[in-house]
Amino acid sequence: MFESAEVGRSVGKKEYARRVAVLRTRLLKAQQALAGTNLRLVVVVGGVEGGGKTEVARRFLDWMDPRGLSVEAYSERSDEEEERPEYWRYWRTLPPSGHGAVLVGSWYTRPIVMRSFKEIGSGAFDQALDRAMAFEAMLIRENTVLVKVWLHLTKKEQRRRFEELESDKDTAWRVTKQDWAFAKKYGRFREVCERALTKTSTGAAPWTVIEATDRRYRDLAAGEAVALSLEGALARTATPAPKPAPDRAKPPKVSILSRLDLTKRLDSDDDEKFDKQQTRVALLSRRLRKEGRSMICAFEGVDAAGKGGAIRRLLAAIDVRNARVIEYGAPTDEERAQPYLWRFWRQLPRLGKTTIYDRTWYGRVLVERVEGFCAVEDWKRAYAEITAFEEELAEAGVIVCKFWLQISPEEQLKRFTAREKTPFKQHKLTEDDWRNRAKWDAYQAAAVEMIEKTSAPDAPWTLIEGEDKRWARLRVMKAVADRLEEELG
Amino acid sequence: MFESAEVGRSVGKKEYARRVAVLRTRLLKAQQALAGTNLRLVVVVGGVEGGGKTEVARRFLDWMDPRGLSVEAYSERSDEEEERPEYWRYWRTLPPSGHGAVLVGSWYTRPIVMRSFKEIGSGAFDQALDRAMAFEAMLIRENTVLVKVWLHLTKKEQRRRFEELESDKDTAWRVTKQDWAFAKKYGRFREVCERALTKTSTGAAPWTVIEATDRRYRDLAAGEAVALSLEGALARTATPAPKPAPDRAKPPKVSILSRLDLTKRLDSDDDEKFDKQQTRVALLSRRLRKEGRSMICAFEGVDAAGKGGAIRRLLAAIDVRNARVIEYGAPTDEERAQPYLWRFWRQLPRLGKTTIYDRTWYGRVLVERVEGFCAVEDWKRAYAEITAFEEELAEAGVIVCKFWLQISPEEQLKRFTAREKTPFKQHKLTEDDWRNRAKWDAYQAAAVEMIEKTSAPDAPWTLIEGEDKRWARLRVMKAVADRLEEELG
Repeated sequence: MFESAEVGRSVGKKEYARRVAVLRTRLLKAQQALAGTNLRLVVVVGGVEGGGKTEVARRFLDWMDPRGLSVEAYSERSDEEEERPEYWRYWRTLPPSGHGAVLVGSWYTRPIVMRSFKEIGSGAFDQALDRAMAFEAMLIRENTVLVKVWLHLTKKEQRRRFEELESDKDTAWRVTKQDWAFAKKYGRFREVCERALTKTSTGAAPWTVIEATDRRYRDLAAGEAVALSLEGALARTATPAPKPAPDRAKPPKVSILSRLDLTKRLDSDDDEKFDKQQTRVALLSRRLRKEGRSMICAFEGVDAAGKGGAIRRLLAAIDVRNARVIEYGAPTDEERAQPYLWRFWRQLPRLGKTTIYDRTWYGRVLVERVEGFCAVEDWKRAYAEITAFEEELAEAGVIVCKFWLQISPEEQLKRFTAREKTPFKQHKLTEDDWRNRAKWDAYQAAAVEMIEKTSAPDAPWTLIEGEDKRWARLRVMKAVADRLEEELG
Repeated sequence: MFESAEVGRSVGKKEYARRVAVLRTRLLKAQQALAGTNLRLVVVVGGVEGGGKTEVARRFLDWMDPRGLSVEAYSERSDEEEERPEYWRYWRTLPPSGHGAVLVGSWYTRPIVMRSFKEIGSGAFDQALDRAMAFEAMLIRENTVLVKVWLHLTKKEQRRRFEELESDKDTAWRVTKQDWAFAKKYGRFREVCERALTKTSTGAAPWTVIEATDRRYRDLAAGEAVALSLEGALARTATPAPKPAPDRAKPPKVSILSRLDLTKRLDSDDDEKFDKQQTRVALLSRRLRKEGRSMICAFEGVDAAGKGGAIRRLLAAIDVRNARVIEYGAPTDEERAQPYLWRFWRQLPRLGKTTIYDRTWYGRVLVERVEGFCAVEDWKRAYAEITAFEEELAEAGVIVCKFWLQISPEEQLKRFTAREKTPFKQHKLTEDDWRNRAKWDAYQAAAVEMIEKTSAPDAPWTLIEGEDKRWARLRVMKAVADRLEEELG
């Protein structure tokens, strides 16, 4: 892979000036066009130490308008980052639609370094690369122009570069001990990188390997790769996507939902049962911080299924300083300028904390599917993306509880009618609620498929018979307590 | 102040049930109405250890809809918080319009604890209280319903409470060593708190001191204080504010701006001068992290004054990994749901980093004033709020550089015309630009007043003769280098 980047390419001063003039205009024009679209630009700059990743990033800031382009350099993780899944820092620095970011270092850095120093085996390394690819595939489908450039130096050239820097007192500080540690392992490092690049050079997000010996050639090659990708993506947006159609699937006659026994009830004198589960949740959730864990409780169900009441009851068992409830309605404009999972990532709890999601990322395969808010291929790919998201959570020690609250259409009607009559509950009933009711079957079909496709050992669905509110609330509490016990031992 | 909270108030079980039923309906109704307004609710729960701050916060979550109400408990600062001004954590947890937050601990905690343990003198303590008051005054004028309750216990009762908790193995963990340390200093602590409460009990944000011995009385009193404030604020919103008028002041004939010598030029063969300043900025800005400092460069000026070019030139001198440019146009809807300074707070740099603001918080006293986007009293109070903001920055070690770029109306016209002719600069010229040009005098008047009222030793304005772009850019670079040198020594 690297041989073709060891042939001695270079660009003369004059040619450089001429080509840069053309390139700058192209980049500025493309950036300007980008600002008016829902696309974002992400440039991953990887490569060997000494190859000039930061210099290349600097070049982009020089050539383009820095007000629409940020440079993200990922150094040490802050404690807020340490306490969340590995990719949280990449999610939080994603540029919004219309903007761009040049990443110095990326999701590749950690696995490559760890593998080079044999801190992880080849299996774990491949898994990390799979994650990177899945993340990139998601980014691309979520309107990201992803450009990956790799700056390559031969062993000899790298050594020469370090020595050159060290010989000048103004630049000597730029060569660190770690750089030399890498240089010593050049061969090993090269092998690991080759594996990484070969595996992750996909059709949609190929690596452009650039010979970085000559700075002029290097910068031009990087700039031209970005201009080309950006122009191509912008040209494609000229053809507007067809308006997605709503999905009106019928649920199977017999399904995991139809088989729920909605006659289950809890007598109101069963208060001890509540007390028992409440105490369990209280004691167990208090241990989260000490065990280096956090928790997510996700609630889905048709309107008036009782999510609010169940959440309130659950919340009462958790230390109020460590829990937060987020209700998801229409996204804000900052959220709309990001991939659909972004608004959920931003609320991930720190260690010891719990976030309760009232409606969740499953909106993609429920309301967005049924109402035709996204294309068929978008909600179809969401199952895998969501599964991957929850895997990342579980790996980072997040305890994931997911609830589907099921009621009958008759019970829903009863609750709607009751809401209409209670003054301070009227606001909970909107015209949308009545409209959604008409699509009952489609929502049930979507729910059945969702539950089947996204149940995982580390992120199981708990189906709740919701017809009796007390029964439902107790079931939720018990399920959370059981999950906590299972995970915390 | 505390004597009236030591009289043995209590509420019987029956009365409690009756009053809670009424209170809950009031709170829910008010919360529902709040959701549709631009108001936010902030409840500060302070008080002695053992008084039950967390229990009271819990009560609010029980009584109200937790989906519109968060509890913020401020424990140890994270490193991201440590690296910013003290109030950053309060800004970042402010609820948006329509929502509420109950704060367990607040901006009072730190000064009170430090003063109780004599880590700060009475002068510094008073200063801290002044800051708290200024912050609260700003919050209130920015549509915040601020309710401050203080939970009081006598020395005897506090001791009894701790012993009670410790005697039960399920609650013993709640009493910490620090709690006993406070208890030992009860007298001193009481004195300090009394001073704090007396001083900060303002007309708009008075403290409600609550006798916390009887839990039922305590919770009811806190709840009723919140209901009352919220209902009052909601009633006042019924009268819509009059539409603000644009401000068309004339600038003084002779002013700091008119006296600038716009004939200043730099010859294009003076490149060494650029190199010299660029090197100074590069070397000095590299020291920021080590010195525990960060930097902010704020740019203002009429359209086409050359902010973009100056920023680009300055940016070229700073390590690309440590600098970021934020351009401020219309606020996003998340920003609109917050006080006007919020969108600038959220971009404050960490240690070692630089944020360059292309247009700034001064928009309040420039465009918002001139165009009538806010009421006269709002932009008039902004001078003091902005000064306070920049004082906080300076105290936290942020080096603040502020630039006003001045050009003549003739030069602006020339640049507008040139932009019209350059394909990839056309987008920089909007109809607004032409409209703003017609208000030249009003903008100049606003700028003159702004510069006069907000120049401070720690946040000085540098006025830049902008007619010659090269001159302006060099002046900016030199000013930044000088500020850095002055601050870093």
